[in-house]
Order: sequence, then structure tokens, then C-alpha cells
Amino acid sequence: MEKILTNYSPFIKTFLQSYLNEKSSILNFINQWGYDVSKRLKDFSINGKIIRGSIILFTEVMYGREINDESIKLAAAVELFHSGLLVHDDIIDCDELRRGDRSIFSQYKIKGANEKIVDPHYFGISMGICAGDIAFFIGFELLSSLKIDDISKGKIQQLFSREFVSVGLGQMQDVYFGKSIHEPNENEILKLYLYKTARYTFSLPFMLGGLLAGIDSKNLQLLEKLGEYLGLIFQMKDDELGIFGVKSNFGKPIGSDIKEEKKTLFHLYLFQQVTRGEKNRLRKIFGSTDVTARSIKYVQDLIIKYKIKEKIDKKINEYKTGAEEVILDMDIEDKYKEMLHSIIDYNLNRIK
Amino acid sequence: MEKILTNYSPFIKTFLQSYLNEKSSILNFINQWGYDVSKRLKDFSINGKIIRGSIILFTEVMYGREINDESIKLAAAVELFHSGLLVHDDIIDCDELRRGDRSIFSQYKIKGANEKIVDPHYFGISMGICAGDIAFFIGFELLSSLKIDDISKGKIQQLFSREFVSVGLGQMQDVYFGKSIHEPNENEILKLYLYKTARYTFSLPFMLGGLLAGIDSKNLQLLEKLGEYLGLIFQMKDDELGIFGVKSNFGKPIGSDIKEEKKTLFHLYLFQQVTRGEKNRLRKIFGSTDVTARSIKYVQDLIIKYKIKEKIDKKINEYKTGAEEVILDMDIEDKYKEMLHSIIDYNLNRIK
Repeated sequence: MEKILTNYSPFIKTFLQSYLNEKSSILNFINQWGYDVSKRLKDFSINGKIIRGSIILFTEVMYGREINDESIKLAAAVELFHSGLLVHDDIIDCDELRRGDRSIFSQYKIKGANEKIVDPHYFGISMGICAGDIAFFIGFELLSSLKIDDISKGKIQQLFSREFVSVGLGQMQDVYFGKSIHEPNENEILKLYLYKTARYTFSLPFMLGGLLAGIDSKNLQLLEKLGEYLGLIFQMKDDELGIFGVKSNFGKPIGSDIKEEKKTLFHLYLFQQVTRGEKNRLRKIFGSTDVTARSIKYVQDLIIKYKIKEKIDKKINEYKTGAEEVILDMDIEDKYKEMLHSIIDYNLNRIK
Repeated sequence: MEKILTNYSPFIKTFLQSYLNEKSSILNFINQWGYDVSKRLKDFSINGKIIRGSIILFTEVMYGREINDESIKLAAAVELFHSGLLVHDDIIDCDELRRGDRSIFSQYKIKGANEKIVDPHYFGISMGICAGDIAFFIGFELLSSLKIDDISKGKIQQLFSREFVSVGLGQMQDVYFGKSIHEPNENEILKLYLYKTARYTFSLPFMLGGLLAGIDSKNLQLLEKLGEYLGLIFQMKDDELGIFGVKSNFGKPIGSDIKEEKKTLFHLYLFQQVTRGEKNRLRKIFGSTDVTARSIKYVQDLIIKYKIKEKIDKKINEYKTGAEEVILDMDIEDKYKEMLHSIIDYNLNRIK
């Protein structure tokens, strides 16, 4: 995966950079925010891992087609939509940090405070909502400017927009689970993972790359399935990093899932196993506005004590096996099958 | 205009109703919010005036083409994007009411409170952000499913997405002007009106209808200009209704522009004319969280005392003349020119 990211992400970053630079000078004509938001979205977007965009290009190559300007445009559009979602997600989760830097709403909050704006926090939220919307609209403009055959273009746009509707619904479920007294079961959590992250991070870019390469529906379906397995592994590792990660690697504060009381599998399994006394203390930690290092340590220790990570890893291994079986059936050269295995490994071992 | 709305909006409402009903059963498969948000967006969308969608259909007919399923789809897509913007706008402005009913974020706030969710207000904001995003994505899906010739489709998507980028930037400017100490001048205010409202409410639907009808660039440019004039009149009447309107007609609380200290032309002209004593009292009223009926009356009286409305009406009349000149040049039958004049009159006389 590292190799895939190194191979393809520079094309996408370069494109995003020049495209958003161009936008910033065009949009500056409308008002000061035209320049401002294009620049922020540019820095924000190229600061990401560019996983989704890179997978599109890799998949196209994997199925025997060379990448070109249009595939890079499509990859950049996915990254812009992804940025828009993250901008809104950070408002929803009140995350001040993202990708090792201030989140967009937090940047506007600071700007508001510097300019002596009343209630800079809400100013940040408002400007962040607009900035996320603009990321979608710019991404959509890019998508509508694709110069590829019209049938593929239609399919790509349909797949794209449908998947983002699902992501939005997954996001709503995530908000709800984090705040309501409803305790989701394992199935509900896995379904949330699927729609909020897994499918749009892996299935969607795999399939978009496949559509660019003009592959048959059998291979498209395999890519969709493969993406779901990889995405579930990705999300479960993300949960782990949210509890055990190191902030300087992860780019966002450790413990935010605890603060938000995200209903992760860790959360579910933990509450299923702990004693009544431990449960009482956990209830005070999860969802509290001030999660201390000591509280995080307490959660970590309980996870170790009850071998929760082992239970999660067992699940991850099932998905790994599932993914490997899918790869066997795909009509691609062996060297690409090996690279797909490297994506699995990347997901299993990532520290950020 | 009334006639245009009565003629065309029922097609769009019927389509939105059946389309979002269908969506709600498909999306229900993903999670409970699939049904929930489709239903809310449906009620919210069909509750609007459907000005933008109706103008698309009217313009198509005006240029000699019959409307069909695809034009209705395009009209519905514009209305969905418009709904998405309003959903976010109500969060930004903390408006609990819209279109005579609770705004979407406020609906979720109530739902959250009923379900004993901690901080139901922020729950409402979070769910509202997602609901607005989903409106965009569903609108985009609709737009990508248009079955029209590919050249027009490309042009339509480009025009569409570019205009919404401008709306987003206008929205940012609006937030900034409402909160910062910067006092915008007349030009800045008019530019804000243009991008935040005028162009996307009139120029965009006029041009989309024109593109559907395959008109030449001369007429497209005339439609763009006409839309700007009409839109400016529309916004200036909106400002007036925000101060002098009747809540039961207007559908949202009177005085919210005062509470938000929107930098309208009324605001600008008023502050240019009042005495120091009046200015001090106005400063306490504008931007205060609790704007009383008495405060609104005070603002109204000053506007009357200093003949601010007359000054605004003079400007509106210039735009009216501008619009009438554009209409003269358009290559359409006289009966349609009369109908365009009726749109001007509607804008001049509307009470909601």
C-alpha cells in the first residue's frame, strides 16, 4: 500500500494543488472567501493520505489501462468530497485537530477570535459548514468536467452520488449512536462501519477505477466486496488507533472516540465483559468532556485485561481471509494480486 | 409569476414526492435515517415556493420547447440543492422556523430532546449538517441521471456546480458581515446579494431552462442579466419583509435579520442617517439575542422617519427598468414578455 500511495498520490496532489490555485484566483473575483477557502481546502486536501484517489488510479492500472488526466481528475474529485465530509465531521465531533493541523472550522474560529468576532466558536462552525459545502460543489464541478465516454461518465456519477448518500446516512447513525441511550449491537455497528467508512474508502474508489478501465460486472462486484472487507479492517484499526495510537502519528487527539462515546466494537465488547464497578467508572469516562490521560490509560488497561483486542483481531482475520478469497477470483496479473495483499497488510499494520 | 408557479410547481412537487418516497424505501435498507431524512427533505422541499424549479420549466416553454420528464428532474434537482442550502443556512442563523414549520435542525433537536439525548441542540446541528449534505448528494444523483444530450448535460452540470460554489462563497460573506466589525459599503452588499441569492434564484434557473431549450448565447446572456435584476429586487423585498413582514405570511420570524445583524441595505442606509443617540440605541438592538416587538417597532419607525424605504424603492425601480430593457431584446413571443413582466410585479408585491 505504501508503494501504491507513493506511486499515485503525487499526481493527485499536484493536480489538486494547481486546480485549487487556479480556483482561488478565479473565485477571488467573487469575494475574499474565494481565495481564502480554496487555499484552505487545498492545504487540507493535499495534507491527507490520498488513499481513495490513489486506489482509483491503481485499480485502473491493475486492469490494464494507463492513467491519464481524466483519471487524475476523478481521483481529485473523490478527495475533494472526502475533504468536505471531514470538514463537516470535525464540526460534528468538535475535533479541533485533523491531519496534524487545525481542522477547518477551528481555523475559522481562530480567525474569528483574531478579528474580535462575537462568538468565534459559532463563527467557526458556520464558516466550516460553508467550506464543506464548497468542497462538494467544487468536487462536483470537477466530476462534471470529466472528458470520458458518456456511458462511463453517467455510471461513475451515479455510483459516486449514491455512495455519498449512504455515507451521509452512516454519519447520521454515528451521531445518533454517540449521543443516544440506545446501545447498538454488533450487527448495527458493523453496518455503520460499512456505510460510514468502508465502502466509500475502498469499494467506491476500486469500482470507480474499474469503471474507468471498463471491466465486466463480475470484477466490479469482486472489487465492491474486496473494498468492504478492507474497509472494515481499516475502520477497526482506526478504532484501535483512537485508543492506543500516538497523537503525533495519528494526526488527531487520542481519546476523541472516548470523549464522543463512539459506539465502536471496542466499546461494545468492553461493556459486555467488565464488572459492575468497572462499568460504573467507564460510564463516567465515556462521553465526558474532559477525558484525561489517566482515564485513557484506564480504558486501555481494561481492554488488555479482557483481551478485547484479541477478539477484534479475530474478526479482522476473518475479513482478511474473505479479502484473500476475493483476490483469488479477480482477473488481474499476479503482481497486482500481491499489491492487493500489501494493501491488506498496510491496513493491518498502520500506525496513522 | 403566480400563474407560472401555479402552472409548473405541481409537476415538480409531484415528482419530488414520488422520488423521495422511492428513496425513503430504498435508503431505509441502509439504516433508520434513510427513511427519516428522505421524508423530512420531501416535506421540506414541497413546502417551498418552488420558484427556481418553476422558472426552469417556464423558460424552456418560453423558448418553444415542451417540458418533459427530464426537465422536471432538473427542476427537482435545483430544488433539492436549494433545500440543502436552506437546511445549512438555518443552522448558521439559528433559525428554528422555516417555511412556516420547524427548520430541519430544529426538528432533530426536538427529536433529540424527546429521546433524552444529551445536548439536543448540538444533536440537531449535527443531524442538520448531515441532512443538508444528503440533500446535495441526492440532488447530484438526480442531476447525473438526466437523460438528455450529452453536450447540454455537461453544460448544465458545469453551470449548476459553478453557481453553487458562488452561493457558498456568498454565504460565507454573509456570515462574516453579520459577525465582524467590518461595515460593508453599498457595493459589497449588492455583490453579496448577487451571489448569495440573486443569481442562483433567477439567473441559474433561467439559464438552465435556456440550455434545455438549446438557445443561443445571446439569449443565455440576456437571461443571466435579467436574473440578476430580478434577484436583486427579490432580495431587497426579502430584507423589507424581514423587518415589515407578517410572520404568518413570511414563514420565518420577523426580526431575525435584526437579531443576526444582517448587513442589508436597510441597515447601511439607516446607520448613515440616524442621530448619534438613535445610533446608540440601534447598536443595542442589532445583534442582540433578544429582539423584542418594541425594538422591531423602533427600527421600523426610524426607517419610516428617514425615508429609507423610498431610497431602497428607488434602487428597485432602477433594476426594474434594467430588467424591462433586457426583456425587450429577448427572442421570445410577446405573451412570454408579458409573463416576465408579471415576475417583476410578483417580486415587487410579494408578501411572503
